[in-house]
Amino acid sequence: SNKNAEELVEKAASFGLPRNLTSLDSPAFAAAMDEADPLKKYRGYFIRPTINPDDPNESKESIYMCGNSLGLLSKKSVKYVNYELDEWGKRGVEGHFVHSKIEGRDKKYEPWLTVDQNVNSLSANIVGALPQEVAIMNGLTVNLHLMMVPFYRPSPQRNKILVEQGPFPSDLYAVQSQIKYHGYNVEESLIQVGPDEGENIIRTEKILETIDKHGHEISLVMLGGVQYYTGQFFDIPTITKAAQAKGCVVGIDCAHAVGNVELALHDWGVDWACWCTYKYLNAGPGGIAGAFLHEKHSRNFDLPRFGGWWSQNIKTRFDMRQPYDPEPGAFGFRLSNPPVLQCASLLGSLEIFEEAGGMKNLRKKSKLLTAYAEHLIGSHLSSDVDIFTPSDPDQRGCQLSVKMKCDANEVNKKLSEKGAICDVRKPDVIRVAPVPLYNS
Amino acid sequence: SNKNAEELVEKAASFGLPRNLTSLDSPAFAAAMDEADPLKKYRGYFIRPTINPDDPNESKESIYMCGNSLGLLSKKSVKYVNYELDEWGKRGVEGHFVHSKIEGRDKKYEPWLTVDQNVNSLSANIVGALPQEVAIMNGLTVNLHLMMVPFYRPSPQRNKILVEQGPFPSDLYAVQSQIKYHGYNVEESLIQVGPDEGENIIRTEKILETIDKHGHEISLVMLGGVQYYTGQFFDIPTITKAAQAKGCVVGIDCAHAVGNVELALHDWGVDWACWCTYKYLNAGPGGIAGAFLHEKHSRNFDLPRFGGWWSQNIKTRFDMRQPYDPEPGAFGFRLSNPPVLQCASLLGSLEIFEEAGGMKNLRKKSKLLTAYAEHLIGSHLSSDVDIFTPSDPDQRGCQLSVKMKCDANEVNKKLSEKGAICDVRKPDVIRVAPVPLYNS
Ligand SMILES: Cc1ncc(COP(=O)(O)O)c(C=O)c1O
Ligand SMILES: Cc1ncc(COP(=O)(O)O)c(C=O)c1O
Repeated sequence: SNKNAEELVEKAASFGLPRNLTSLDSPAFAAAMDEADPLKKYRGYFIRPTINPDDPNESKESIYMCGNSLGLLSKKSVKYVNYELDEWGKRGVEGHFVHSKIEGRDKKYEPWLTVDQNVNSLSANIVGALPQEVAIMNGLTVNLHLMMVPFYRPSPQRNKILVEQGPFPSDLYAVQSQIKYHGYNVEESLIQVGPDEGENIIRTEKILETIDKHGHEISLVMLGGVQYYTGQFFDIPTITKAAQAKGCVVGIDCAHAVGNVELALHDWGVDWACWCTYKYLNAGPGGIAGAFLHEKHSRNFDLPRFGGWWSQNIKTRFDMRQPYDPEPGAFGFRLSNPPVLQCASLLGSLEIFEEAGGMKNLRKKSKLLTAYAEHLIGSHLSSDVDIFTPSDPDQRGCQLSVKMKCDANEVNKKLSEKGAICDVRKPDVIRVAPVPLYNS
Repeated sequence: SNKNAEELVEKAASFGLPRNLTSLDSPAFAAAMDEADPLKKYRGYFIRPTINPDDPNESKESIYMCGNSLGLLSKKSVKYVNYELDEWGKRGVEGHFVHSKIEGRDKKYEPWLTVDQNVNSLSANIVGALPQEVAIMNGLTVNLHLMMVPFYRPSPQRNKILVEQGPFPSDLYAVQSQIKYHGYNVEESLIQVGPDEGENIIRTEKILETIDKHGHEISLVMLGGVQYYTGQFFDIPTITKAAQAKGCVVGIDCAHAVGNVELALHDWGVDWACWCTYKYLNAGPGGIAGAFLHEKHSRNFDLPRFGGWWSQNIKTRFDMRQPYDPEPGAFGFRLSNPPVLQCASLLGSLEIFEEAGGMKNLRKKSKLLTAYAEHLIGSHLSSDVDIFTPSDPDQRGCQLSVKMKCDANEVNKKLSEKGAICDVRKPDVIRVAPVPLYNS
C-alpha cells in the first residue's frame, strides 16, 4: 500500500532522490538504502546459498527469500558445531563437565551438563520472556504436546480447543489427536475461527466474539503467533486477555513469529508457547525447539506433566535414587538430555541476534524491507498478483503471501532463474520473506 | 570367573603361551590377542580422548572404558556432520530435496526430507527389527512417553506398571508421571521387582512369579534391556512371552543394550522399545534416540497416539489441508521433522557397525574383552572389589559393575592417572565398559 511506502519515499528524499514513488524503483535508491543500513554487516556473517550449486558454470549467488522456511547457516554456527565435535573428540564423557575456552569469546561456554543454558537467555530475550520461562528442547510438535499435557485437560463442561482456521497441519494433527486421546470428538471439540466470507485475514473481533460466545466451554486457545500461510500477526495480548477472562488457557505457536516480530510473551501473560528454530532463528534443519511457560505457572507442581530426569533438580539429578523433584519454570518440563550439536548450531545464530541489538533493530529494518518488496510487487505486478498478507505492518511480520493469477510454479521457476529462492504453497501462493538479518 | 577365562586360556595356548591363567597376565598375551583381532582396524576409525587434554605437557592417550555413558566420536561422524553443514550452506531450503554425492560412497545419501532413513535400516539391523519397525527420533525419555501414550492406558482393573527395582531415574520418573497423569496412585500402581535379599541380580523366575501373580492387573511391563547399574541383561524373550500371556504390554528401554548385546526385538515379539544413541552407538551427547514398534501393531490406527505432521503419509504431508493419515509402523509415531546434524553424527557410527559385520562380530569380541577385564580385576584386586554384574556372559553385556571396598573416587582418580577413563556411581561403584569397537 502507498502508506507503507511513505517512509521509503522520505528515505529516498534524504538521499537526494525525488520525493516520489518512482524513486523507489531506481537502483540508486536500493544502493543508498544498503549503504545506510546499520545492520548491513550481518549479511556477511551468513553463508548464502547458490542457485545451481552443483554446476560450477551455471551457479550464482541467490537472493534468499525463504528464511520463513529454513534460515541460513551462519559462520558462527559452523564454528560452534565443530567446537563441540572437538570437545567430544578430545574429552569423551568429561565434556559434560569441562569445556575449553573459545578464543575471542568472553562469556563462558557451558559444558554439556548445562549446554542448553548457552541458548536459553538469548532465546528468552527474543520472545520477551524471563530466562526461567524458557527451555530449549525437543522438536516443536513434541513441545506442543508436552505443554498440552498440563494445559489441555478436558472435562465434559470444558473440552474445546480454539485454533485459527487452517492452522499449520502439524498443529491441527496435534490438537485433533489430543482431543481424541481424551475421548472427545473432534467435530464437537475443535473450533476453527476463519476470515469472513471472501476475506483472507481473520479479524480480531471475530476471535473475540467466538471467545465471548464459547469461552466457557473452551479449555485451550491455541494460535499461530504469525500465521504460516497468510503471514497475519495476531493481536496476542488482546486475545490472551479475553480468553483468560473466560477461564481458557492460551498457548501460542511462535514458529513464524520468533525472530520475525517483537514478542512480549511474559508481559502479555500468555500461558505457554512453543517455537521451532530452523526458520528465522537459523538453527538448521530439524533444529532444536523452544518452549515458554509463564512465570505464574512456574511453581505449580500440581500441574500434571510428563516426567524425566532432565527436569529433575540438578542438585539430585545424578544421585540416581531420589524422589522426583522437578525444577521450577520451563526447565521442569525437560525430559531428555539436550542434543549438543543442535544447541551449538542455534547458539551461533542467536549470538548474531544479540550483536545486532535484538528484535527491535531487526524489526525496524524488516518493516522497511517488506514495505519495499510490497511496493515493487505492487507497482510492477499488480495485475497478476494479489498480496493477501495484511497491509498494516503491525499485523504482519516480514513475509508477504502472494496469490498468483498465473501458474505459481512457472513464476517460481522464473524467480529462481533470476536468482531468487522463494517458496510455493500449492496451488497458487508464493511466500516471499525478505529476512532482515541477511537480506538488503 | 575361571570358566569365562577358559576361552582366553585356549587362545593363549594357540599363541604358544602356557595353557594356564598366569599366561593371561603377560603382555605377550595382550599383544597377541590384539594382533589376532579381526576388528582391530576399527579402533583407528575413532578419535580417542586424552587425559589432561588442556595441558600439552601432561596430556596422554586414554583407555576409554566409558562407552556405556558416552561413546566416542568417529571420523565418519565428523565428516557427515560437516557434509550436512555444507549442504545447508550452499543449498538453503533446497537441501530438503537435493543433496550432493559423497565421494567414495555408493549408497545414496537421503536429503533432509527423508534424512532419518539414512540411519533407519542400519538401526533396525542392530536391534533385530524390520526397517518399518524403527523410527529414529527425539530423545529417549520423550520416546518412552510417546510409546506409553498408546500402550499405557490404565483402567481400574488393569493399571499397574512393572519395572525392575531401581530403574534408571528417568524411566522411573516417566512411569510415575504417567501413573499420576491418569489419576492413579504410584504406591499402588508401580511394582518394582528386585533381587533377593543380599543379592544384586534379579532372577528371571522372580520376575515370572510376579507376572504370574499380578499379571492380570499389570498394564505394562517396562524393563531396561541391560540394567544400567548392575549390567544385567534380562531374559527378554522369556519375560515377554509370560507377560503377554497375561495380557500385559511389554516395552524395553534398550539404552544399555543397543550396540552392546545382540537383540532380536522382532522375533522376541516385544511390543515396543526405545533407546538412546550416545552410549554404544556413538552418536554424541544428546544424540537422537530410537523407537521400535512391533509389526503386529503396525496398522493398528485405533491406538491413540500423539499426532504431528511428520507421521503423516509422505504423499500428502505437504499438501497442508489433508486429513490425518499416519504412516504405518514406527514412522506413524514421529512428530517433528528430524534434527539433521544428530542424524549425521549417528550415521557415521552406524556405518562402522555395518562394516564391522554387525553385532554378531562385535559381541564375540566383546565377550573376550569383558572376560579378560574380569580376569584381570579378579586376579589382581579380588580382596578390594566385588564384581556384581552376572558372571554368565549371556546375562550381561560388556559392562562390569565393580563395588569398591575402598574409596571409589580415590580409585577412579588413580585409574585416571594411569590413563583409564571409567565412571563412578555414587557411593562406591565403578563401571568398566571395554567397548569392543574401539578397545583392545
Ligand atoms: C536406561 C536409561 N534410560 C533413560 C535415560 C535417559 O535418557 P535421555 O536423557 O536421552 O532421555 C538413560 C540415560 O543415560 C538411560 O541410561
Ligand atoms: C506453525 C508451525 N507449526 C508446527 C510446525 C512443525 O514443526 P516441527 O516439525 O518442528 O514439529 C511448523 C513447521 O514448519 C510450523 O511452521
